[in-house]
Parts: sequence; structure tokens; C-alpha cells
Amino acid sequence: MFYKPFGQYEVGEIWTSFGRTITESDVVSFAGLSGDFFPLHVDEEYARTTQFGRRIAHGMLVLSISTGLLHFEPGIIAAFYGIDHLRFIAPTFIGDTIHLNTTITELQDRKESQGLVTIKQDILKQTGETVITGNLKLLLNRA
Amino acid sequence: MFYKPFGQYEVGEIWTSFGRTITESDVVSFAGLSGDFFPLHVDEEYARTTQFGRRIAHGMLVLSISTGLLHFEPGIIAAFYGIDHLRFIAPTFIGDTIHLNTTITELQDRKESQGLVTIKQDILKQTGETVITGNLKLLLNRA
Amino acid sequence: MFYKPFGQYEVGEIWTSFGRTITESDVVSFAGLSGDFFPLHVDEEYARTTQFGRRIAHGMLVLSISTGLLHFEPGIIAAFYGIDHLRFIAPTFIGDTIHLNTTITELQDRKESQGLVTIKQDILKQTGETVITGNLKLLLNRA
Amino acid sequence: MFYKPFGQYEVGEIWTSFGRTITESDVVSFAGLSGDFFPLHVDEEYARTTQFGRRIAHGMLVLSISTGLLHFEPGIIAAFYGIDHLRFIAPTFIGDTIHLNTTITELQDRKESQGLVTIKQDILKQTGETVITGNLKLLLNRA
Amino acid sequence: MFYKPFGQYEVGEIWTSFGRTITESDVVSFAGLSGDFFPLHVDEEYARTTQFGRRIAHGMLVLSISTGLLHFEPGIIAAFYGIDHLRFIAPTFIGDTIHLNTTITELQDRKESQGLVTIKQDILKQTGETVITGNLKLLLNRA
Amino acid sequence: MFYKPFGQYEVGEIWTSFGRTITESDVVSFAGLSGDFFPLHVDEEYARTTQFGRRIAHGMLVLSISTGLLHFEPGIIAAFYGIDHLRFIAPTFIGDTIHLNTTITELQDRKESQGLVTIKQDILKQTGETVITGNLKLLLNRA
Repeated sequence: MFYKPFGQYEVGEIWTSFGRTITESDVVSFAGLSGDFFPLHVDEEYARTTQFGRRIAHGMLVLSISTGLLHFEPGIIAAFYGIDHLRFIAPTFIGDTIHLNTTITELQDRKESQGLVTIKQDILKQTGETVITGNLKLLLNRA
Repeated sequence: MFYKPFGQYEVGEIWTSFGRTITESDVVSFAGLSGDFFPLHVDEEYARTTQFGRRIAHGMLVLSISTGLLHFEPGIIAAFYGIDHLRFIAPTFIGDTIHLNTTITELQDRKESQGLVTIKQDILKQTGETVITGNLKLLLNRA
Repeated sequence: MFYKPFGQYEVGEIWTSFGRTITESDVVSFAGLSGDFFPLHVDEEYARTTQFGRRIAHGMLVLSISTGLLHFEPGIIAAFYGIDHLRFIAPTFIGDTIHLNTTITELQDRKESQGLVTIKQDILKQTGETVITGNLKLLLNRA
Repeated sequence: MFYKPFGQYEVGEIWTSFGRTITESDVVSFAGLSGDFFPLHVDEEYARTTQFGRRIAHGMLVLSISTGLLHFEPGIIAAFYGIDHLRFIAPTFIGDTIHLNTTITELQDRKESQGLVTIKQDILKQTGETVITGNLKLLLNRA
Repeated sequence: MFYKPFGQYEVGEIWTSFGRTITESDVVSFAGLSGDFFPLHVDEEYARTTQFGRRIAHGMLVLSISTGLLHFEPGIIAAFYGIDHLRFIAPTFIGDTIHLNTTITELQDRKESQGLVTIKQDILKQTGETVITGNLKLLLNRA
Repeated sequence: MFYKPFGQYEVGEIWTSFGRTITESDVVSFAGLSGDFFPLHVDEEYARTTQFGRRIAHGMLVLSISTGLLHFEPGIIAAFYGIDHLRFIAPTFIGDTIHLNTTITELQDRKESQGLVTIKQDILKQTGETVITGNLKLLLNRA
């Protein structure tokens, strides 16, 4: 999304990412990388007894993959500043395909050379359901 | 940290996690898992030209590893509700060892069977410097 | 299992672990990590012609995952001493969920500060069938 | 295949490798390792709209796995010289099992201690269909 | 590189990619993914006795990473057609950073809707040395 | 090692494997695969305070890699029967290179078509020090 320097964005601008299928391999790798082996993610027998009926992806995995879908551009992005009001709304199951809808909601001047952009990020799956929302804050360079 | 049901926590309770060293392998794996190949994480020649002077770990990688250090207990944790005011404050370099300091800051009744706990989470490295902060919100079951 | 120092265990004590589903991703990763690409693990066409009718997990993978399910506690565990009479009894298929049943069978004084505990370990799958057994020997610290 | 030094091969010699099943885990790992997240490999919803109807493996993944099936022998192989006329002919789907058919097509003297062997390599899947062909060139040591 | 449909390229057009550092983790992962555990890649003691003096990356790993650096655009790329005259010229060591220089050398009309582009690809490392060359052939869609 | 059917081995036969360097990436991957994040393996700050002075590889990782170095041959190996008297003797550090020395110590007739071979396995590192020993038992097919 971020191919333009700060100063060339407008509040209300929207962008939609490519998609990515969340595979069993992603869930297993993320458990191993994060060390989060919560049974709902790695024990199918346990997961079957929950309200979800099967294993679900870690919310942090889905969020992490969404940052890859944003395609940060070197030279433009100065820093990943933070996230506000991140909410895990609905489960992502193995085999679901997610994509991102983003809307620029705020543009703040900072230093002479940088500005802070706030993006409402909705992670949706193929059913149209939103699984995660949050407000990302990125520090961008000016031209 | 979460071995007790909701109702047995008090505001102000603190907890410190074990540590984990952030390796080059973690950074490479996270780039591959997330799809985030921003040069600051994967191109040492580029990183050398930045203010950091070398590659830094993805903020989302460090945050993901911190969730593994929390050791969520099945039966106790009902859901990962969200995060507020997440801020990436300082870089984590390859070879840094992080750990978590957590403080319970709020306990909210929800349904009859559940409560919402808010935890101020500080991710520190071996130097004592805080690299990431945020307020995690977890839905816990009552006894 | 091992949250108590040596001196606080009794012969006959039992413990049951959480479960973990052995995925295709685990089998592929273990082949790559160990370098063991025996066709029964990585060639579905070949595996179909064997008595098993499909790929099976490496015995050493299932054993390795069982050590993760034990949750060794720092401060308590002094060393992984060894294993006796390890036997691979039945195949673990992709999709099977394993868990551990352990029984303390022997407690031996060693140095003043340590003791050696022997644990009969049975790795079972969701069908109740035992897939691997062995006698683990761990060196524990006293209080 | 290459257990003999240069000087002990003849043009026309053929060899067939063991097989390997191309799993979803391989495709996901290769995307992460190569950084090639082309949607045809990682987005099942997108792939469904193409002529293939589902995700396909990266051609370079299948080619890379074929080099593992060759089992280069230390002492014999001096260098991987190159590949000519590499063609990606047909898709490899997740779950397909590939193997290699190789034929020695040329033997060239080089230095006193080495020779260059050209191998026509056909990568086939379980259906008998060829998915990739190419002419590998390897520098072998003499006895 | 390929953001434009066939018909909008000219012979002689050049493009330079971002860089990527080839890490030990990449080499280990590629050995595991490909099954190519040739000692020159995975045995430091052996590698020390060779002309290279240390482990080198698999040529196919470096080539695979170069395809990720090309950033194929969905809608534009119809197929990875093949590679001609691929040559592994110089070793890539752990810690080297590679990038791609590409030049369009041929544009061929094919079907009404597609064209075949040939790209001379040079993979260079931070020293300016070329490690791999080859002529990639990609089938592109017209506008 | 096992390219011959049962009936063609003699007690006392020895064999030495190729080597493999145990990398940080292997240790990190094994922690993630096994779920064993014992601080001695993943926390450099903690490891520095122990008698070892730095992180050590999981014993089960080194043992798993040794099974890959054995190169089991399909058609010959009927089953991995078990291991007796496995002992973890000395630490393997990141960067150590291991190899296997094996000696056939027992040959037992079983069924008409199979025999059980017992192999004393010593895993050594580049210093000549033995890190793990054990008696592997493999069921082999007759010719």
C-alpha cells in the first residue's frame, strides 16, 4: 500500500490487499516460532470439544500475516509506531483465506521530515466476515 | 502467568516471564511466515546504512514471542480479546534476550462465567530497556 | 510435570500431559531437520504399498514432541540423563493426536544436591493405543 | 546417482530416483524461504479462479527437491556447473509425488582431474506426466 | 519488476532488485526443504578442508531467493516458462547479501493474449561479484 | 550404512557417517518443533549463568540428526525397533560438528524374513569427544 511519501495521502483513502490462505503449516510454524502451544491451536481432539469444533489459527499469526500483505516500501516507511484498539473478533480456521481492507483515518504532522498515518485495518476472510480489526500507526517519510 | 481463574486476581499483581533470545533464525523464519521482507529485517547491507546500523527484529515477531512467554493455561483462558495502545519503542537486535514484565491493571466482570483482565505488558531486553509496551486484554473463565 | 524438587516425589506418582496433533507439517519439518527422508515418511505413493497404507510419522519426531509435552522446569531439572528400553510399538499417522502418561518408577539418591528419577513414559494416541514406551531418566535438583 | 568418479560413466546410462510427495507444508515453506508469495501458490481463493483450479507448487521448489533426490556424493561431485534448457511443462499440485528420471547425454573432458557430465533430467509425477525437464551439468572428479 | 503487461517493455530495459542477506538459517532450511545435505553446505569441518574454506549456500537456494526478489505481479505473469544457460559462477557464503540485475534481451509474440520475455539475470553480491547468471523466460499477459 | 540385507552383516562391523554442523537454526527449529523451550536451549542470558556458559543443543535434536546420518535404505529397513541405554554424556554447543561411529554388536534371527540388528552408536563431535551413546535396534529384511 505505502508507495507514496507522507503528504500524498488523504483521509478516507482505501486499499485492498491480495489474499493469503492460512494453512495448517502456518499454524504449526507459528506455534513453534512464538512458543504458544495453546491446545486450541495444536490439539485437534481438544479443539473438537470447544465451541469452535476444530483448531483455530493464533490471532497473532493472522495479524502477522496481515503486516506482510501491507508491503511496506523502504524509503517511505520510517517506523512501525504502534497499534490501537486491536480486537480479535472471529476465529480464522485452517484453510480460510484472509485479505486486508485498509482506510486512512488520520494524518498527523510530526517532525519536519515525517508524518504519522493512522490506518483502520480490517482483516476479512473469504466469507466476508471480519476476523480482526485495529488501528495501525505508521511513521512515514515525506518526499 | 494465568493458572488461576478470574476472581483470584488483584489489580497490581505482577509477574515476570522466563527469557528468550531473539536469533537470526527467528527473524528469517518470521519474514518467511509473515511475508514481511522489509530490508531492515533481511538485508544487512541496507540495514548498515540506517540509524540502527544492523538488522532489527520485526516488532510483530517480538510481540508474538512474548505471547508464547505468557503460557496461557487451557481452561482458564477463554479468549484473547485484544490489545490497546501497543507501542514499538526501541529496536530488538539479533542476539538480544527479551522477557516480559506484566502488571494487572484492570479487572472487569463480563458474563456470569467470565471476566476481562487488562494487563500492562512491558517487553524488556537484557539491557533493562523496554522495547515494546501494550495493554493486553484477556477473557478468563471463573472457577 | 516437574515443578517440584527431588525429595518431593514418590514412586507410583502419575501425570498426564496435554495433547498435540501430529501434522503433515511436523513430519515434513522433522524430515528436513533430521535429514531422514525415508520414503515411508515422505513418499505417499511408496507408503501406500506398505502394510501401513499411508505415510507415518518418524518415531523420533513423536518422541521429540513428547519431551516438549513434559514441560521441564528450570531450576528443577539438572540434566536429561538418558532413556532405557525405548520401544516404537505402533505407527503414528498424520492427524493422530498424542499425549503422555508418566509414572515415577524409581528415585535414586546421587550427589548431595541431586537425585535421579526414572519415569515410565507411555505415548498414547487418541484411540488409546500406546505408540511408544520408554524409561526416561532425569537428574533433578533438591530443594 | 553419482557414486562413481568421472571416467566410469557412459552416455545413455539411466537412473531413477526415489519419490517425494510435494506437501502444502513444502509450498508454504518455499514461499517463506524464497519470498515468492505469488497468489497462485499461497491464495486458494485466487487459485480457484485460474485454469489450474487450485494452488500449484513453485516450479523452483519442485526443481530444488529434485536436486535433493539426486544424492550428490562428496568426493565425486566437484561443482554444480549449470542447467540448460530448463522448462516448466506442467503444474505440480499439493499432494503430487514426484521422482526423477535421468539419462547421461554427454561426457566432456575438462581438466586432468575433472570431467563435465550432462544429464537430461525429467521430473515426473505419479500420473507419469513430466512436469519439468532440463539438462543439468555437473563437474565430477576422476578417480 | 513486472508491473506492466507485455507490449509495454523494450529490449534493453534494466531493473535492479532490493537485496537479501543469505543467512545460515536459509542454508539450513534449504537443506531440509530440498533434502540436499551435501557436506559443503552443512558440515563446517568438511567445508574447511575445501578450496572455499567454509560452508557455501546451495546454488539453487540463491536462485530461488532471486525469484522472490523479482516480485511477480498477478495478472501480468502468465507462467514461468523456463531458464536457459544457467551458470553457477562463484560461491555465495553465509552472510553475503545478494541482489539482482536484470536486462530484457528478447520479446517474442506468442498467442494473441501473451508474449514471451527473456531476461538476462545476474545475481551479484555485495562485493560486486556475479555469483549466478541465466536467461529467464516468462510468459506475460498483454494489457 | 544399511545397504545390505540381514544375513550379510557380521558382529564387529563398523561404519562412520558424514558430519553435520549443529547450527543455531537447528536448535531454534527443534525448540519450535518439539515445544521444548527449556531456557538452557533458548535463553542465552540464562545459559551464561550455568556451568555450560552458553546455550546447548537439545540432546534429542542431536540424536534426531544422527538418525538422518544413518541413511536408512528402503527395502532393507523393516522397522526402527528401539533404543537401549541411551545416555546424554556431554553437551553439544551451537557450531559443533557431529558424526556417528557405529559398531554392530548383535545379530538376532527373528521371523523367517527378518532379523534384528543391534548397533552401538557413538555420536562424537569435532573434538573427538563422545556426546551421546546408545544401542539402536533395527529390524532388517533378509535378501
